[in-house]
Amino acid sequence: MQPLGGMERDLLQPGVTGAAPGRVIVEQLSPEIDGGRFPIKRTVGEPVEARVRVHADGHEILACALQCKAAADSTWSEVPLQAAGNDWWRGSFIVRQPGWYEYTVLAWIDRFATWQRDLKKRTDARQSVDSELLEGAELLRELASRAPEAEASWLRSQAQLIERGESSARERTALDPLLGSIAARYADRSTGTRYERTLRVWVDRPRARFGAWYELFPRSATDVPGKHGTFRDVIARLPLIAEMGFDVLYLPPIHPIGRSFRKGPNNTLEANEQDPGSPWAIGSAEGGHKDIHPQLGTLADFHELLQAAAERELEIALDIAFQCSPDHPYVTEHPQWFRHRPDGSIKYAENPPKKYQDIYPLQFDCDDWQALWQELLSVVIYWCEQGVRIFRVDNPHTKSFRFWEWLIARVQERYPESIFLAEAFTRPAVMQYLAKSGFTQSYSYFTWRNTKWELTEYFRELTQTNLRQYMRPNLFVNTPDILPEFLQHGGPPAFQIRLILAATLGATYGIYGPPFEEFLRAPRPGSEDYLDSEKFELRAWDWQRTNVFRELIGRINRIRRENEALHFDHRLAFHTTDNEQILFFSKTSEDQSNVILVIINLDPHHTQAGYARMPLEQFGLQESDSYQMQDLLTGAHFLWHGEWNYVSLNPASTAAHILRLRRKIRTERDFDYFL
Amino acid sequence: MQPLGGMERDLLQPGVTGAAPGRVIVEQLSPEIDGGRFPIKRTVGEPVEARVRVHADGHEILACALQCKAAADSTWSEVPLQAAGNDWWRGSFIVRQPGWYEYTVLAWIDRFATWQRDLKKRTDARQSVDSELLEGAELLRELASRAPEAEASWLRSQAQLIERGESSARERTALDPLLGSIAARYADRSTGTRYERTLRVWVDRPRARFGAWYELFPRSATDVPGKHGTFRDVIARLPLIAEMGFDVLYLPPIHPIGRSFRKGPNNTLEANEQDPGSPWAIGSAEGGHKDIHPQLGTLADFHELLQAAAERELEIALDIAFQCSPDHPYVTEHPQWFRHRPDGSIKYAENPPKKYQDIYPLQFDCDDWQALWQELLSVVIYWCEQGVRIFRVDNPHTKSFRFWEWLIARVQERYPESIFLAEAFTRPAVMQYLAKSGFTQSYSYFTWRNTKWELTEYFRELTQTNLRQYMRPNLFVNTPDILPEFLQHGGPPAFQIRLILAATLGATYGIYGPPFEEFLRAPRPGSEDYLDSEKFELRAWDWQRTNVFRELIGRINRIRRENEALHFDHRLAFHTTDNEQILFFSKTSEDQSNVILVIINLDPHHTQAGYARMPLEQFGLQESDSYQMQDLLTGAHFLWHGEWNYVSLNPASTAAHILRLRRKIRTERDFDYFL
Repeated sequence: MQPLGGMERDLLQPGVTGAAPGRVIVEQLSPEIDGGRFPIKRTVGEPVEARVRVHADGHEILACALQCKAAADSTWSEVPLQAAGNDWWRGSFIVRQPGWYEYTVLAWIDRFATWQRDLKKRTDARQSVDSELLEGAELLRELASRAPEAEASWLRSQAQLIERGESSARERTALDPLLGSIAARYADRSTGTRYERTLRVWVDRPRARFGAWYELFPRSATDVPGKHGTFRDVIARLPLIAEMGFDVLYLPPIHPIGRSFRKGPNNTLEANEQDPGSPWAIGSAEGGHKDIHPQLGTLADFHELLQAAAERELEIALDIAFQCSPDHPYVTEHPQWFRHRPDGSIKYAENPPKKYQDIYPLQFDCDDWQALWQELLSVVIYWCEQGVRIFRVDNPHTKSFRFWEWLIARVQERYPESIFLAEAFTRPAVMQYLAKSGFTQSYSYFTWRNTKWELTEYFRELTQTNLRQYMRPNLFVNTPDILPEFLQHGGPPAFQIRLILAATLGATYGIYGPPFEEFLRAPRPGSEDYLDSEKFELRAWDWQRTNVFRELIGRINRIRRENEALHFDHRLAFHTTDNEQILFFSKTSEDQSNVILVIINLDPHHTQAGYARMPLEQFGLQESDSYQMQDLLTGAHFLWHGEWNYVSLNPASTAAHILRLRRKIRTERDFDYFL
Repeated sequence: MQPLGGMERDLLQPGVTGAAPGRVIVEQLSPEIDGGRFPIKRTVGEPVEARVRVHADGHEILACALQCKAAADSTWSEVPLQAAGNDWWRGSFIVRQPGWYEYTVLAWIDRFATWQRDLKKRTDARQSVDSELLEGAELLRELASRAPEAEASWLRSQAQLIERGESSARERTALDPLLGSIAARYADRSTGTRYERTLRVWVDRPRARFGAWYELFPRSATDVPGKHGTFRDVIARLPLIAEMGFDVLYLPPIHPIGRSFRKGPNNTLEANEQDPGSPWAIGSAEGGHKDIHPQLGTLADFHELLQAAAERELEIALDIAFQCSPDHPYVTEHPQWFRHRPDGSIKYAENPPKKYQDIYPLQFDCDDWQALWQELLSVVIYWCEQGVRIFRVDNPHTKSFRFWEWLIARVQERYPESIFLAEAFTRPAVMQYLAKSGFTQSYSYFTWRNTKWELTEYFRELTQTNLRQYMRPNLFVNTPDILPEFLQHGGPPAFQIRLILAATLGATYGIYGPPFEEFLRAPRPGSEDYLDSEKFELRAWDWQRTNVFRELIGRINRIRRENEALHFDHRLAFHTTDNEQILFFSKTSEDQSNVILVIINLDPHHTQAGYARMPLEQFGLQESDSYQMQDLLTGAHFLWHGEWNYVSLNPASTAAHILRLRRKIRTERDFDYFL
C-alpha cells in the first residue's frame, strides 16, 4: 500500500525518534484549488481571505497564524487568525506586488494563556493555587528563553513575583493581561503544526481585474472605402477611443496573411486578388508570428502606436493565434511541427466534414515538441520585448493545456505584469481548466446570457463559488465571430442593455467596434456571424459622424472609473423585483463607502415597470429611512423611502438606472445631508 | 518559489527529454477526502461510485478507466468509465474483502475511434477518403503491435482490406463496429494521463455498517440486589439479549477499579468500603488494562462469555479508556507517562474548577511517548488476541488524534476485521476528524436531535454530504452518561419514538439497558445523568419480568434484519407531511427491491394526524395507482392510493408505522398481486 502522507506508516519503527507528532490539527485551509495544484489569483492591493479549521485534543487555548510572503522573500510575515466559531479561524493578508505569493497556516498550543484561563477559574472558585503559581513561574522562565533580553528579564522578574510573596499579589501578577500578551509572543511553537501544503497566489497588476476593452481591425481604421488602414490610421482613432473611456485596445493578428486558400468575403472559398484574407491565417512569404503585415506598416510604426496609445492611457493588446497559413515560414523550415498525410503532405485543419484549407494546425505533441514550444514562447517574448503586455489568445482549447501552463509561467517569470485572455468558447470544464492553468482572464458565456434567471445563476456561479478564486470573466458583448441573437433582433435598445450589463456586472468587459457603436446587426443568414464581416474584407466606418451611443459608452466608462464598487466582480448581490424583465443588482466597494445599484430593463421592445425591493439591512438602512439615489447616467436624484420603490424603464430612451446610494444623515438641526 | 506539481517548472530545461506532456486532463476525482490525505470507508460488497472530470484539447474521442485493486494485489483491475455529460465520467467497483483498496483513473485518446467517427462524417458528406483510409490502415498496424498474435494478425488483415480494393468495401471494413471495439482494447495508452493521486478505501466487514448494540454493566447482570454480577451472570442474560435481536453486546471497562479517591453513589467524592467505584477508574493493585476486575471473574470466564455470545450470534465489544486510576501499575512503573506538579506529584484530571482526583490522564506527547504508545497498542492487541474485535473508545478527543490514527492502523494491519467506535461527544470538526483518522463508527448528535427540522437537517448532513464517505454514526438513544431530556419528560412513548428513530434512521444503533427497557427516566436533578447511576453503584434489575417493550425491541430488530433497506445509512429520503410533528422518510435497498417507509409521531404526548405525501415518482408509481403498504410493526395492511394519504398515530399505543411498500401489479386477468 502506498502511504499518502497518512499516519498509517509506523511512527515507531526503528530509527524513528524525536518529539511526538503534534497535537494540533490544521485542515481545510481555503482558498485552495484542487489540493494546492493550482494557485489562486489576486491583483495588487487585494486581500486573500483565509479560512481554516484548527483544533486539538483537550481544552487548551490555541493560537493560529496565517503565514504569507512574496515567493522571493526569505522570511514569512504573520497575521494572527481569529477564531470564528466551530473551530474555524479567519484572517487575511494583502498582496502588494505582482508575482507569486505563498501562504500557509501555523497553529500551536498557547500554554501560558491556557494556564492563565485555568488559574482564573480556580481563583474564582477560591481553590488553593500554590502549585499552579509555581507551574506558571516555570512556564514563564521557559518562555523567557525565547525572548530578546529586555523582555526575557521582565518575564523572569514576573516569574519571581508569581513564585513568592503575598498570595493575592502573586495572583494579580499572574493574571495580568499584559503578561499574557507578552507571553503569547514567545509561546513554544516547536510542537505546533503547519498546514500540510504551502499554497500559492498569482498576483497580477490591477488591469487584470478592471478594464474596458475595445477591439478594432486596424485595416478598417481609415474612413476611405477600399483603402487598407494602417497603424498610423489607428493612431488617428486613438482620441475617439480614449474619449469613449476604454483602457485596452485589442488588435486582431497583425502578422502577414497567407495567400494559399485565402478566404473571400463572407468566408467563401474563393478570394480575389484584392481580398485581404483573414488576419488569423498567419504567415506568408513576408514572414510569420514575429512579423508585421506590410500593409499595416512597419515595426517602427507599431512602436509609435504603442507610444501614442500609452499617452492616452490606452494599452495595446495583441492576438496570439498559434496556427499557420500554408505559406507560413514554419511550414518549410519545420515541417515536423505539423501533422502529415500518408503521402507526406501536411494536413490542414478539419472538423469533419468541414475543412479549413487555409489553416495548418501545429502539433503540440509532435516528436520535436520541445523546439516547437520554445519557438512559440519566443514569439510571445518577442512581442513583450516590443512593449506589449496584454495578449488575447485565440482558441487555446485546441492546443495542449500543459503547453499554456508552461508558456504563461515562463512569460510571467520575466514579465509578471503580462496578461493573457483565453478565448475559449467551449465547455465549462475546459474553460475552467484553462483559467486554473494560468490564463489571467477568460471569455465567458455572458455573451449568451440574457434573461434574469440566466444572468443571476451565471453571475452567482462566477462570483460566489470557488470559480472566483481563479477565473476572471471578460464580458465581451460581441466579437468578430459572434453577433448574438439578442443584438440581431433587439435593435439599438438591445445594444444599450448589453453594454450596461457588461460594464456593470463585469469589472472587465469589451466591445468589438465600430460595428457595436454603429448598431450593426445583420448576420450572415442563419448564423451568429456578421454579414460582410471585417474578418474577410475591408470595411470603412464613418469615424467623424456624431454618435450619441459613443457618448453613452463614454459616460458609462467614466462611471466605472469613478466608482470603486465597479472595479471588482465580487461583492455583487442580486435583489428582488416584481417584474421578470427587470434585473436589480448592487455592487459594493470593500470599505462599503461606494454602493452602486443597477436596475435594468432586459426587454428591448417594451417599457417595463414594477417595484424593486431595496435590501435595507444590507446597507444598514431602516424601514423608515429615506435615502437618496443618484442616477449616474442621467444625473437625476431620486428620494427613495423604505423597502419597495417603483421604477419604470423605457428601453428606447434609457434602459437602466445606474444609481449611487447616498445615505441620509439626520443632524441635530434636522437638516438633511446625504453622504 | 516552491513548485507544487504545477507546470510552472520549466519542462524544457537542459536534460529534460522524452514525450510531450499528456494532452488529457484527469481532475476532480471523487470520492476523495482532503486531497487523498484520508481514505474513504466501505464495507465488503459495497460499491465505490467514482466521478471524475476528463477532457482534452481538441475534439478527439477519449476513453477512461477506473483502476482499482486490493492494496496487496500487484495488478490493477479496470472498469470502463461512462461519459455522463459536461466532461464528467462515472463508474463504480465493488470492494470484496476487508483491508485497504486503492483506486485511480487513467484516461487516453482513442485515436482509432476518433478516426472512425471522422471517416463516417466524411463518407456521409461523400468526400474522398483515400488518404484517410491509408491513415487508418497505418493506425491499425500500430495497434496490432500491442495485441496478442491472434488479434494482431486479424487487425493487420483488416488494415490490408482497408488499404486496397474497391472503395465501398474498404469503407465498410473501416467502419465496422467490431473493428472499432477490438481496436479500442489496444489503444495507445502511453500518452494517456493518470489522475495525480492514488486514493484509498478502507474496507470493513459488514458489521461496521449494520448492527444493533446493547450496552450492559456486567456487575448488574444478577437480579439479586447488592450482589456483584459476573461474566457468568452475563452468560445467563445472553438468551434475553439475543431474543431482543441485538448483534453486539458492549461492556464498560472490565478491568480492576482503583481504590484511591473512588467515587461514591451519584458521583460523590466519598465512597464507602462496599461501593464498587466507576469502571472507568482503571487500575489497582490487581492490575491494569490487560487485567480483569476479580469480582467479574477470570480470563477463562471471559473466554467462556465470548464463546457463549458467539453461539447466539452476539459479539462482545470492550471499552478502551486510556486513563488510569492513581492505583494503576503504570503510575509507579512509568511515572514519566503522566504530568507532574512542581512538587513532583502526578496531576489528576481537571477541567478547572472541576477536579477528577480518581483519574490520572496519560500524557501522549511526553518524552517517552514511543514506549507509551507501544504499550497502549499492546493493550488493544492483547484483547484482540483474546478474541475481541470490537472496541468502543472512551473520550478519544482528549487524546492525541495522531495517536489514534497510528493505533487503529496498526491494529487493523493485524486484525482488519476490528471495529473502533469513537465516543467523542464534542464539536463537529473534532468528531469528523476522528472519523477521518480511522474510527470505524462515531457516536453522533442524534441523541439530542428531536424535532422534524433537527432530524432532517442532521441526517441530510450525515448521508448526503461528503461525511457519508468516512463517518458512520452509531445512534445511541441513551448511555450511562446521557439520559436525554426527551426521555426524562416524554414517558414510555418517548422511549418508543427514540428507539424507532434510531433503529430505522441508522443502520447501526444502540441502547444502554436495562435502564432503557425499564423506562428509567429520573435524572440527577438538573442534569442528564441517571439518578443512582450504575456507573457508581450496583443496580439489580428484574430480568425475569415480562416486558412488552423488550418484545417491541425484538420485533424492530427482526424488521431490521429482514429488510436490506435498513442495512445502510444512505439511500435515505425525507418526505412531506402536513403536520410538523409527523416525520416521514424512506429507505431503499441498492437494487430497489426493498423499500421501507417510516411515518412517526415525534410528539410523545398527543395523537397526531395528518396527510403524508407519497413520493410516487421516486418509486415508479402513477397518481392513479393503488399500492399496498404492509405495517411491519402490527402486521396490518393498508391500501394506499395516489399521492396524499391520511395517517393518525397515537404514541401511547404505536407511535409509528414501519411500512414495506408492495407495488401492485395488474395482470391480464385484472387480478391483483402485490410484489
